Amino acid sequence: MPKKIVAFGEVMMRLQVPGYELLTQANTLQYSFSGTGVNVSSAMTKLGYDGYLITKLPDNPLGDAAISFLQRLGVGRDFISKGGKYVGMYFLENGFGQRASRVTYTNRLESSFNTAHVSDYDMDLIAENADIIHFCGITLAMTDQVRESMKILAKKVKAKGGLICFDCNYRPSLWDGGYTQAKPHYEDMLALADIVMMNEKDAMFILGMETEKSSKEEQLKDLIPKVAEKYHIQTIAGTHRAINPDNTHSLRGYMYKNGSFIFSKNISFSVYDRIGAGDAYTSGILHGELAGFPSEKTVRFAAAAGMLACTIVGDTPMSTETEILSAMAGTIEDIKR
Amino acid sequence: MPKKIVAFGEVMMRLQVPGYELLTQANTLQYSFSGTGVNVSSAMTKLGYDGYLITKLPDNPLGDAAISFLQRLGVGRDFISKGGKYVGMYFLENGFGQRASRVTYTNRLESSFNTAHVSDYDMDLIAENADIIHFCGITLAMTDQVRESMKILAKKVKAKGGLICFDCNYRPSLWDGGYTQAKPHYEDMLALADIVMMNEKDAMFILGMETEKSSKEEQLKDLIPKVAEKYHIQTIAGTHRAINPDNTHSLRGYMYKNGSFIFSKNISFSVYDRIGAGDAYTSGILHGELAGFPSEKTVRFAAAAGMLACTIVGDTPMSTETEILSAMAGTIEDIKR
Amino acid sequence: MPKKIVAFGEVMMRLQVPGYELLTQANTLQYSFSGTGVNVSSAMTKLGYDGYLITKLPDNPLGDAAISFLQRLGVGRDFISKGGKYVGMYFLENGFGQRASRVTYTNRLESSFNTAHVSDYDMDLIAENADIIHFCGITLAMTDQVRESMKILAKKVKAKGGLICFDCNYRPSLWDGGYTQAKPHYEDMLALADIVMMNEKDAMFILGMETEKSSKEEQLKDLIPKVAEKYHIQTIAGTHRAINPDNTHSLRGYMYKNGSFIFSKNISFSVYDRIGAGDAYTSGILHGELAGFPSEKTVRFAAAAGMLACTIVGDTPMSTETEILSAMAGTIEDIKR
Amino acid sequence: MPKKIVAFGEVMMRLQVPGYELLTQANTLQYSFSGTGVNVSSAMTKLGYDGYLITKLPDNPLGDAAISFLQRLGVGRDFISKGGKYVGMYFLENGFGQRASRVTYTNRLESSFNTAHVSDYDMDLIAENADIIHFCGITLAMTDQVRESMKILAKKVKAKGGLICFDCNYRPSLWDGGYTQAKPHYEDMLALADIVMMNEKDAMFILGMETEKSSKEEQLKDLIPKVAEKYHIQTIAGTHRAINPDNTHSLRGYMYKNGSFIFSKNISFSVYDRIGAGDAYTSGILHGELAGFPSEKTVRFAAAAGMLACTIVGDTPMSTETEILSAMAGTIEDIKR
Amino acid sequence: MPKKIVAFGEVMMRLQVPGYELLTQANTLQYSFSGTGVNVSSAMTKLGYDGYLITKLPDNPLGDAAISFLQRLGVGRDFISKGGKYVGMYFLENGFGQRASRVTYTNRLESSFNTAHVSDYDMDLIAENADIIHFCGITLAMTDQVRESMKILAKKVKAKGGLICFDCNYRPSLWDGGYTQAKPHYEDMLALADIVMMNEKDAMFILGMETEKSSKEEQLKDLIPKVAEKYHIQTIAGTHRAINPDNTHSLRGYMYKNGSFIFSKNISFSVYDRIGAGDAYTSGILHGELAGFPSEKTVRFAAAAGMLACTIVGDTPMSTETEILSAMAGTIEDIKR
Amino acid sequence: MPKKIVAFGEVMMRLQVPGYELLTQANTLQYSFSGTGVNVSSAMTKLGYDGYLITKLPDNPLGDAAISFLQRLGVGRDFISKGGKYVGMYFLENGFGQRASRVTYTNRLESSFNTAHVSDYDMDLIAENADIIHFCGITLAMTDQVRESMKILAKKVKAKGGLICFDCNYRPSLWDGGYTQAKPHYEDMLALADIVMMNEKDAMFILGMETEKSSKEEQLKDLIPKVAEKYHIQTIAGTHRAINPDNTHSLRGYMYKNGSFIFSKNISFSVYDRIGAGDAYTSGILHGELAGFPSEKTVRFAAAAGMLACTIVGDTPMSTETEILSAMAGTIEDIKR
Repeated sequence: MPKKIVAFGEVMMRLQVPGYELLTQANTLQYSFSGTGVNVSSAMTKLGYDGYLITKLPDNPLGDAAISFLQRLGVGRDFISKGGKYVGMYFLENGFGQRASRVTYTNRLESSFNTAHVSDYDMDLIAENADIIHFCGITLAMTDQVRESMKILAKKVKAKGGLICFDCNYRPSLWDGGYTQAKPHYEDMLALADIVMMNEKDAMFILGMETEKSSKEEQLKDLIPKVAEKYHIQTIAGTHRAINPDNTHSLRGYMYKNGSFIFSKNISFSVYDRIGAGDAYTSGILHGELAGFPSEKTVRFAAAAGMLACTIVGDTPMSTETEILSAMAGTIEDIKR
Repeated sequence: MPKKIVAFGEVMMRLQVPGYELLTQANTLQYSFSGTGVNVSSAMTKLGYDGYLITKLPDNPLGDAAISFLQRLGVGRDFISKGGKYVGMYFLENGFGQRASRVTYTNRLESSFNTAHVSDYDMDLIAENADIIHFCGITLAMTDQVRESMKILAKKVKAKGGLICFDCNYRPSLWDGGYTQAKPHYEDMLALADIVMMNEKDAMFILGMETEKSSKEEQLKDLIPKVAEKYHIQTIAGTHRAINPDNTHSLRGYMYKNGSFIFSKNISFSVYDRIGAGDAYTSGILHGELAGFPSEKTVRFAAAAGMLACTIVGDTPMSTETEILSAMAGTIEDIKR
Repeated sequence: MPKKIVAFGEVMMRLQVPGYELLTQANTLQYSFSGTGVNVSSAMTKLGYDGYLITKLPDNPLGDAAISFLQRLGVGRDFISKGGKYVGMYFLENGFGQRASRVTYTNRLESSFNTAHVSDYDMDLIAENADIIHFCGITLAMTDQVRESMKILAKKVKAKGGLICFDCNYRPSLWDGGYTQAKPHYEDMLALADIVMMNEKDAMFILGMETEKSSKEEQLKDLIPKVAEKYHIQTIAGTHRAINPDNTHSLRGYMYKNGSFIFSKNISFSVYDRIGAGDAYTSGILHGELAGFPSEKTVRFAAAAGMLACTIVGDTPMSTETEILSAMAGTIEDIKR
Repeated sequence: MPKKIVAFGEVMMRLQVPGYELLTQANTLQYSFSGTGVNVSSAMTKLGYDGYLITKLPDNPLGDAAISFLQRLGVGRDFISKGGKYVGMYFLENGFGQRASRVTYTNRLESSFNTAHVSDYDMDLIAENADIIHFCGITLAMTDQVRESMKILAKKVKAKGGLICFDCNYRPSLWDGGYTQAKPHYEDMLALADIVMMNEKDAMFILGMETEKSSKEEQLKDLIPKVAEKYHIQTIAGTHRAINPDNTHSLRGYMYKNGSFIFSKNISFSVYDRIGAGDAYTSGILHGELAGFPSEKTVRFAAAAGMLACTIVGDTPMSTETEILSAMAGTIEDIKR
Repeated sequence: MPKKIVAFGEVMMRLQVPGYELLTQANTLQYSFSGTGVNVSSAMTKLGYDGYLITKLPDNPLGDAAISFLQRLGVGRDFISKGGKYVGMYFLENGFGQRASRVTYTNRLESSFNTAHVSDYDMDLIAENADIIHFCGITLAMTDQVRESMKILAKKVKAKGGLICFDCNYRPSLWDGGYTQAKPHYEDMLALADIVMMNEKDAMFILGMETEKSSKEEQLKDLIPKVAEKYHIQTIAGTHRAINPDNTHSLRGYMYKNGSFIFSKNISFSVYDRIGAGDAYTSGILHGELAGFPSEKTVRFAAAAGMLACTIVGDTPMSTETEILSAMAGTIEDIKR
Repeated sequence: MPKKIVAFGEVMMRLQVPGYELLTQANTLQYSFSGTGVNVSSAMTKLGYDGYLITKLPDNPLGDAAISFLQRLGVGRDFISKGGKYVGMYFLENGFGQRASRVTYTNRLESSFNTAHVSDYDMDLIAENADIIHFCGITLAMTDQVRESMKILAKKVKAKGGLICFDCNYRPSLWDGGYTQAKPHYEDMLALADIVMMNEKDAMFILGMETEKSSKEEQLKDLIPKVAEKYHIQTIAGTHRAINPDNTHSLRGYMYKNGSFIFSKNISFSVYDRIGAGDAYTSGILHGELAGFPSEKTVRFAAAAGMLACTIVGDTPMSTETEILSAMAGTIEDIKR
C-alpha cells in the first residue's frame, strides 16, 4: 500500500493568456486548477504515493470543474468539503525575455476555502490516514479561521504519528501586518513541523534572526542549524534560484539533516513554465526521505524535479521517478521512441 | 453633433466555454466584457450616438483589458474612474436544445464598481453632458453606496435636462430581502425616470400592484397605465418572450406612450447568443424616440434590434440602423456581397 | 456508502475532427476516451454511485492519458490492469443535415483490452465489490479471450449476489460469422443477466425468434416477454429511435418488468452529439431500478437521460439526477443563473 | 483513362471569420482557396475525372499556398501559369438566422489571373487535352484580356472536339456597364457553348428577352427553349432556390435537353456553408451527361450534389458519386461506421 | 491635458500564420492592424499622450474592423476619413532560427489611404490640434497624392507651431526610381522636420552624402551633424541593429542634439516579434524630448522601449513608462504578482 | 522534363500534441502524414524534381486524408495502391529543454503498407519511370512481404538503369532479432545500392565490421571505404549529430565518393522540429549528385538542408534550392519582404 500524502490548501483557478499576448490583446484563456497543496499532492501521486487534498470548494460548476481537474491528476477527493461560494482565481500573462510574467489575483479571501470552518473537515479521519501532511506559508497568510484549521490539523496528524511538512513560502503582499504579524504563526507551525522548506531569508526576515555573514550560502549555513535546533526540526531543505542573462534559470538545492548540509550542483536550464518548481522540489525531498535515498541523492533528485517542472505546462509537476532520475543523469536525450 | 448617451453600470468579465462543452470538460475560455450599461451605450454608439459608460475599474491588467474592450466597441472612457481591486466576472456554459445555458458568478460585490464612492464620479460633468442616462435594476440591487450614486446621478442629470431611462430588470437572486427590500428603491428610480423598461410582472411583483386579469397581455394593459400615471413616466416599454418547442425564441415588443399601447408582431427566430437581447430592445426604443420614429415603427425597430442581438456573438448588440431596418423588413437575405 | 457499479469493456480513444470538416480538410483533432463501459460507469458516477471500469490499458503515454481521462470523469481505476501494447481508436467526422456522421476504426483487436487474459483481472476482488456489473454486445464480439473473461466475471459476480446488466448492442461489422456466430454467446450472457437492454430486432435477428406481427411495437410486445421467460430475465428495457426530416431525433423508451410493458412518450429533440445516448438510457434504467422509482418514472427518466446525452459533447453522459428530472419536466429553460 | 475536365477561372483566397463572429469582433481567420473553376474541377475530380484548372498565380508564398491547396483537392496543376503579383481575396463573415452572411472583396482586378495575357496559357496543349472546358460569367466580367483569353480558349477547345460548358452566373456588382455591357460577351460565349447553366432571369435581364408569363416556372419554360434554339445549345440546366422561414434552403433543379424539360423535386435541407452549391449542381449535370444517366436521374443527382455541398465546409464540393446517390435516396442515415 | 501626438500613415492589415508554419502548411491566420503611424500614435497613447491617426479607411467591414482595432489601442479616430475601397494587407510567416521571417504584400497602392485626396483630411483642424505630427519614409514612397497631402500637412502643422517628426525609413522595394526618385521628396520633408529618425546609411544613400570614414559609428559621427546643419533639424536619432549568431538581437541607440552625440549601450535581447521595434524607439525619443529627460536618459529609454517592443505580440508597442523604466534598469524579474 | 524520384515506404499519420503539453494534459492533436519515403519524395519535389511515393493506403477516410496530404506536398499518387485496412500512426509529445520529446506508436504491422503483396504494385511501370528510387532501413525492418517487394523493386529499377538509394536508418526497437536478423537484409540492399546513407555505427553494428580506431571520425574513415568497396557502392554519405548543452543541435555531414572523403563544417543551430532532418540531408545529397555539384558543395548543401528542416513544422522538408543556398551562406537574415 502506497503511503498517503495529504496536503492542506486552497485550489486556485489559473486563467492563462495563451502564448505571449497580454490580457488587453487576447480573447481566450486557458484554465487549470492549482495551488501549493494541489501541486505537492499531485507530484507525490506521480511518484507513486496516494495523494490527497484537504480543501473546500463550492458546489457549483466551478467547484465541479476543480474537482474534475484534481481527479484527472489522480489526487484523491475523499477529504474535499463542498460548500461556500467562490473559487480563488489568478490571471497569468506570460513574460518573454526582458518582459516579466504578470499575475493578477481575484478576491481569494471570499473563497470557499478561506471562509471554511474547522468543522468543514473530518480532521480525525484525516489524522488517522495521513502518513505525511503538507502545509504552506501562503495558506498561513489567509484568515484566522484558516490558520485555526491548519494548526488543529497539524496537531492531530502529529498526535497520530504522521509527519508534518511545512513550506515557509512567505508572500509579502498577503500579510497586511508584515513579518510582525506573520512571525508567531510561523513559529507555531515550525514548532510542529518535521520537514521544513525554507532558506536564510526566511530565517532573517520572518523569524528575525541575525547573522554577520554576507553571502547567501554563509548565511544559510549559519542560520539553518539554529532554526533546526530551536524548533526541533528533523530536516530543512530549500533552494537558491537565479535568472541568468540568457534567460535560463539556475537552481541549487540544499538539505540540512542530522547536523550536516548537502548541496546539489548549481544547475542551469531553459524554462517553459516557472510556476510550481518549488513544489516539485518539495516533492523530491519528501520522496527522497520516504524512499530512504542517501541525502546527496535526495537533494539532486529534488533539484532535477524542480528543473523538470519548469519544462511542463501548468503549475503542477507531472514527472515520474524514472523521468526525474533520467534528468538527474544530465544528458539531453533526442527523441524517446 | 450626435447626442450623448451615458449609461451607469458595472463592467462584468464574461468567461465563456467555447462551443457546447461544460466547464468540467473544457480547458479554454473566451472572454469579453459586458453588462447592461456596456450593452446599451455600445448599442447606441452603433446607432450613431456618442455612447459613454460611467463605471469604476481597477488599475490592473484586468481593468486595462476591460477598458480596451470598451474602446474597441467605441464606448467613451471619459467617465470611467480607476481604482478599487476587482472586476466582477461570470462564467457561461452554453446550453443546447433541452439543456439550458448556465451562468456562474464570482463575487461581484467586492468589485471596483460595487465598492465605489459617490466621490469617484465627476457627477456634475456627467450631468452637463448627458442627453440620456441609463440605469438598470441589476445595479440597483448592489450596495447602498451604488444605490446612492445612482440616485444622485439621476437627480443631477434630470436637473440639467437630461432624460432618465430605467430598466427594471429584477433579478431575484440579487435581493436578499426580496421584493420588500427592492420596492422603495425601485419607486425612487421610477419617480425620476422618463423612459422605463418593464412589464406586468414588475408591476405585480416589485410594486405589489394587483389586477384581476389573467392573461399577460390583459395584465399589462391594466397595470402599465397605472404605473405611468403614478410615477409620471413618459414612455414605458418592454417585451414578452417565449422559448418555442423547436428551440426558436419568440419576442413581442410593446410601448405605452401618450395613453396608448403599441405592440409589435410576435416574431420568432433562431438564437445564437441570447444574452443582451433586452438591452438591444432598450436601445431600439431609445433610438426610435430620439429619431422621432412613429411609435409603431419604434416598437418594430426595437423588436428587430432584439432579434438581431440574438444572432450576434457576445452580450453586446453590434447592429447598425441599416441592418436593423433590413431585418424589420423580414426577408432573409442570402449573402451580402 | 454509494452502491458500486462496475462495467467491463474496452476504452476507445475518440479522435474527432472539430466542427464539420472532413479528415481530408482539417488538420486538428479533439480527443477523448470512451466506450460503453466508460459511458455507463461514468454516467452512474454522475448519478451518485461509485463507478468503476474493468479494462486493460497499455503502460505508455496513451494508456496514461486514458486513465487520466477516466479519473477526470470520476471513474475508479482500482480494477484497471496495465499492460499490452495498444489502445483501440476511432476517428469521427461529424455529419451535418443530410450528410451522415462517419466513424473510421483503427485495429482494435490488437488493443491491450482485446489481448488481455483472464488472469489480468482480479475477478474475485471485483466480484466481492460489484453491486451491479455491466457488459455489452460490442465486447462480446471481440476475441475468445475477451468472451471468456466476460463470462467468468459474470458468473463470479452473480455468485456473490451482484446484478448482471447486459446490453445486446449488436454491431454487424464486428461479427465475421454473423448472427450464427453471435447467437450462442448472446444466449450465454442472457442466461446470466438480470437486466437486459434490447429490442425486438435483437430477438428476431440474434436469437432467431419469429413473430407474425409487423409493427415494431407489436413485435416488441410479442417477443420480449418470451425472451424474459426463456432466459429468466428480471427486467428488459430499450428504445425505439428515429431521425426526423427536420434533423431532430425521436426516442421512445420501454421497460418490461413483472410481466408488463411501460412506454415513455415519444420525445423529439435537437441533437449535438448522438454517440452515447443508448448508454445514458441504460444508466437511467439502472438508476430507476436502484432508486426504487416506479417503472413509469424509470422509463421517462431513462428517456430524458438519453435525450440530454445528445446535448452533451462527447460520448459520455454528464448529467446529474437533478438535471435529468428537470429535463423530464419538459419545459425548456432560458438561462440558469 | 478518366475524361479530362478543365476549368478556366480565377483562384480566390477565402478568408473566413470562424464561427459567427464579425470581423470587428474576431482576431483569427480560416483560409482556403476557391472560385467557380476550382469548385467545378475539384468536384469533377471527386466524381472520378481528371480535373484541371487553367489560371495564373503569383510566384510568391500566397501563390504557392494556392497551388498546394489545389493539389490537396486533387486538381491538376499542369495548366497553371506562374507570374503576376497578386491573388484575389474575399473575406466572409458567416450569417446566422436573420443575419445574412457578408462578403467583402479585395482588389481582384490586379490579380495575376486578371492581368494575365493570352500568351500566359499554352492554349493548344489545353485544347488537345480537354474533354470538357468550363467557363463562367464571373470570369467574363473581369478584364478585356481575360475575356480575350476566354473566347480564344473556347474556340480552340471546340475546334478540337471538346465540349464547352458555360455558367451564366451574372454578378451585377462586377459589370460597371450593367447588362448592356455584358450582353455581347454573353452572346459570344453562348454561341460557343454546348452546355449552359442559367435560368429565366438570365434570359430576361442579360439577353433582354421578353415574356408575358409571370411565374418563374412559366417564364423558364417560355424562354429557355428560345435560348437553346437561338444559340444552338445542346443542354441548358439550372436551379430555382429559396430560403425558408425556418432557415432551411430549398432547391429545385431543371434541365432542358432535346426539346423537353425535366425538373427535380423541390428539396429542402439545412445549410452549413452555402457558397459553392451552384458549382456542385453544375458538376452533377456534367457527370450525368458524361455518365449517360437518364435526364431525370441527372437532374436529381445534380440537385443532391448541390444539397450536399451545403453541408460541407468551404466553397468546394467534396462528395463522391456514392455519397450523392445515397443522398438522392433521401433517407437520413445515423452514423456510418 | 495630455499633448496630442498625431501620426499620418496607412493602416495595414497584418495577416500572420500562427506559430512557425508556412502559408502552404497552415489554414488559419491571426489578424491585426498596424503601420508606422498606428504604432507611433498607439505607443504615445500608452506613454500618456493623446494619440491620433490621420488616415483613410473604406466604409466596409474591413475598415470597421481596422477602426475597432485602433480604438482598442486607444488611438483617437477623430481624424480618420472614410471612403475608398481597400485596406492594404501583408501576410507574415514567422521565421525560426536560421529561417528568416517572410512578408508578402497585397496591392497597397489601391488602398483607401493611397488613393485619398488632400480634401479627404480636415488639415486645418488637424493643424490646430497637433502638438507633434509624425510622418515616415514608407508613406513618402506611395503616390503623388499621398506625398502632396503629407507635405501640405507638415507645413500647416509647422505654421501652427506643432513639431514635425520624420522617420526616414527607406524601403528599396517601394521606390521604382530608387534613391534618385526619393531624394527630392526626402529633402522636402527634412527641410520641414524638427525631429528626424535616420542613420548614416540614409545620409549616404538617400541624400548622396560622402564620407571617408569606414566604420558605421564614424560615418554616423561624420554625416549626421552635416544633415542637421543643412536641413536645420533640432534632433536626429536612430539605431544600429544586428542579429547575433545565437538569434538574439542587438540594438544601440543614438541621438544627436545641440551639436553632441549620445549613445546608449549596445543591448542584446531575445526577440519574439521584431516588427515595430523602430517605432517603439521613435516613441521613446519623442517621450524623452517631451518629458524633458536628459538626452542620455532619452536614448536609453528609447532603446529599452525598442527592446520591449520585441517581446510583445504584434507590430504595435504596448509598454507603459513604468515598464520601460523598469526594463532600462536591466534586471530580469521573475513574476510580477 | 524533371527527373523522377520515387520512394518506397509507409505513410504514417503523425498525431502531435500542440505546444508542449503532454497527452495526459491536452485534448487536441495536430495531424499530418509523413514517413521517410514521404519526406524524401516531397523534399525532391521542392527541389524541382517529380517526386512519387510507392505505398499502399486503405480506401477509407484516413487513406483519403493521407493522399490529400501527399498531393498537397506535390507528391505524385500514380504509384499508390489502395486497399488493406489501416494506416500506421504515431503520437508525438514535444519535449522542452531537458525534457525529451516522446513518440508512441500504434500497431503499424497491420497497416495497409505492411500487409501489402508484391502484386499490389505495378513494378514494371515503376521501373520504367524511376530515375532514382529510395528505400530505407525502417521499411526493411517490417514484414517478409515488405522486404520481398523492396528487393524485387530495387532489382527491377536497377535493371532499367535507375539509381538505387538506400538509407540504412537502423531502429533497434523494430528488429526482434537484432543485428543478426537485420544483417542479411541490409547486405542484400547494399549490394543493389548506388547511393547509401550510413555512418560508422552502421558498419560496426549492422555489418559487424571491426576497427581499431576510437574516434567517430577515424572509425568512419576506416570503415566506409571498405563498405563501398565490398558492396560496390558509388557514393556513401551521412552525418554526425549532437545535442549541445544550450539545446542547440550540431550537425556535420560527410560524403565518400571516388575514394575520397568530404566533410562539411560542424554547424550549430536552433531546432523547432527535429524529425525529418536526416531525410532532408538525403535529399540534399541526391540533389547535389543529380545537379552535378562539386562534392564539397553537395555536402554543405545537404547539411544546410538538414538544418533548415529543423526550423520547419512537421517531419517533411519544405525548402527550395534558393532557400537552402541562402542558408548555406550562413548569415541570418532579418525579414524577407
